[in-house]
Amino acid sequence: MSHEKFQNCIEACQACAVACEHCADACLSEPNLQMLAECIRLDRDCARICQTAVSFMAANSPFAAPVCELCAQICEACAAECEKHAHHHDHCRQCAQACRQCAQACRSLMSV
Amino acid sequence: MSHEKFQNCIEACQACAVACEHCADACLSEPNLQMLAECIRLDRDCARICQTAVSFMAANSPFAAPVCELCAQICEACAAECEKHAHHHDHCRQCAQACRQCAQACRSLMSV
Amino acid sequence: MSHEKFQNCIEACQACAVACEHCADACLSEPNLQMLAECIRLDRDCARICQTAVSFMAANSPFAAPVCELCAQICEACAAECEKHAHHHDHCRQCAQACRQCAQACRSLMSV
Amino acid sequence: MSHEKFQNCIEACQACAVACEHCADACLSEPNLQMLAECIRLDRDCARICQTAVSFMAANSPFAAPVCELCAQICEACAAECEKHAHHHDHCRQCAQACRQCAQACRSLMSV
Repeated sequence: MSHEKFQNCIEACQACAVACEHCADACLSEPNLQMLAECIRLDRDCARICQTAVSFMAANSPFAAPVCELCAQICEACAAECEKHAHHHDHCRQCAQACRQCAQACRSLMSV
Repeated sequence: MSHEKFQNCIEACQACAVACEHCADACLSEPNLQMLAECIRLDRDCARICQTAVSFMAANSPFAAPVCELCAQICEACAAECEKHAHHHDHCRQCAQACRQCAQACRSLMSV
Repeated sequence: MSHEKFQNCIEACQACAVACEHCADACLSEPNLQMLAECIRLDRDCARICQTAVSFMAANSPFAAPVCELCAQICEACAAECEKHAHHHDHCRQCAQACRQCAQACRSLMSV
Repeated sequence: MSHEKFQNCIEACQACAVACEHCADACLSEPNLQMLAECIRLDRDCARICQTAVSFMAANSPFAAPVCELCAQICEACAAECEKHAHHHDHCRQCAQACRQCAQACRSLMSV
């Protein structure tokens, strides 16, 4: 699979990583922080695997596909948690959206 | 400095990281690989610091500025090396351009 | 500077990164989480720069020294914050210690 | 699974990441560099997934297990490639050994 074929998925992973980092940081300033612990944990995992996936795809690694498969799983878990808080916190709403798009982009890649 | 203020620089660092990963991988397939060792080394360092800078900016870290300052230095070194090979290899030309833009975005951030 | 010369500092950075990741995660389970937000933020930054420093040193990068200098600064900031909570939380006490040792190892490297 | 349970595997991943970074950098200085391109690529992938695995384990992430499973696969691929060059290059020999140990530590974790 060529570098260009990955372009869509690279962009979705980049956007997701940024949304997760931002969401985790914003959560830490919320008054109901105690309720957001799980969200922060999943943001952390999701940002990390997204950055890893970007690296593997950009380098055209033979392991890009399994990394993206794992990335999709973690994105979905993070989206599910963020959606619980989406009505109260815009950063959670935006993060959930970025996670869903990233999961979809990763899964599309695998169905090619 | 807010998450949004970083937007420009985040995008430049993301693009630079991808260009560096791609350039290093493409160099490894070139017939004149021996001449590209230094380019691969700098691509590696540059991709790494760009990803680190993205994380710090996206998380609105108080240390985003010094990370970006270091990022600018490494981008400039990588650009200078890639420019030596830009006439022969399109990936080096594109990487050099991405590095220059990223260095400039990092320096603009610091002059704010 | 050779790979072996870095050995001490690599180990200190590895231990510090692990202590920071663990401290941040443990903070998220504490009843006084609200007071630990800054600690979690600095743990995040410190873990990240320590991992980056390990990569640069292990790869014998010409930029290992400035990365370690920045690492020392972030370690000291993280140690100072963790020390505020060291009497209540063992993970903060251990993290502060790992940060101080890492900062010292990074600074020793630079004085060589 | 607690932070301490991961200790063995964290150490194996840390050692493997360092060995891979070092091997890739040393390969770039070898006269038979052209034959080592695949080794450098796998070192890059292996170092990256090992660092990711360390982060997930140190943070006690619920996704540590699947990350380690992927890590084991990439370690085995890297070991197999490095072993081809182990008679000529000590860095490849050491890297292969670190990869085998890391793969085993990751697989032991999963059988618990």
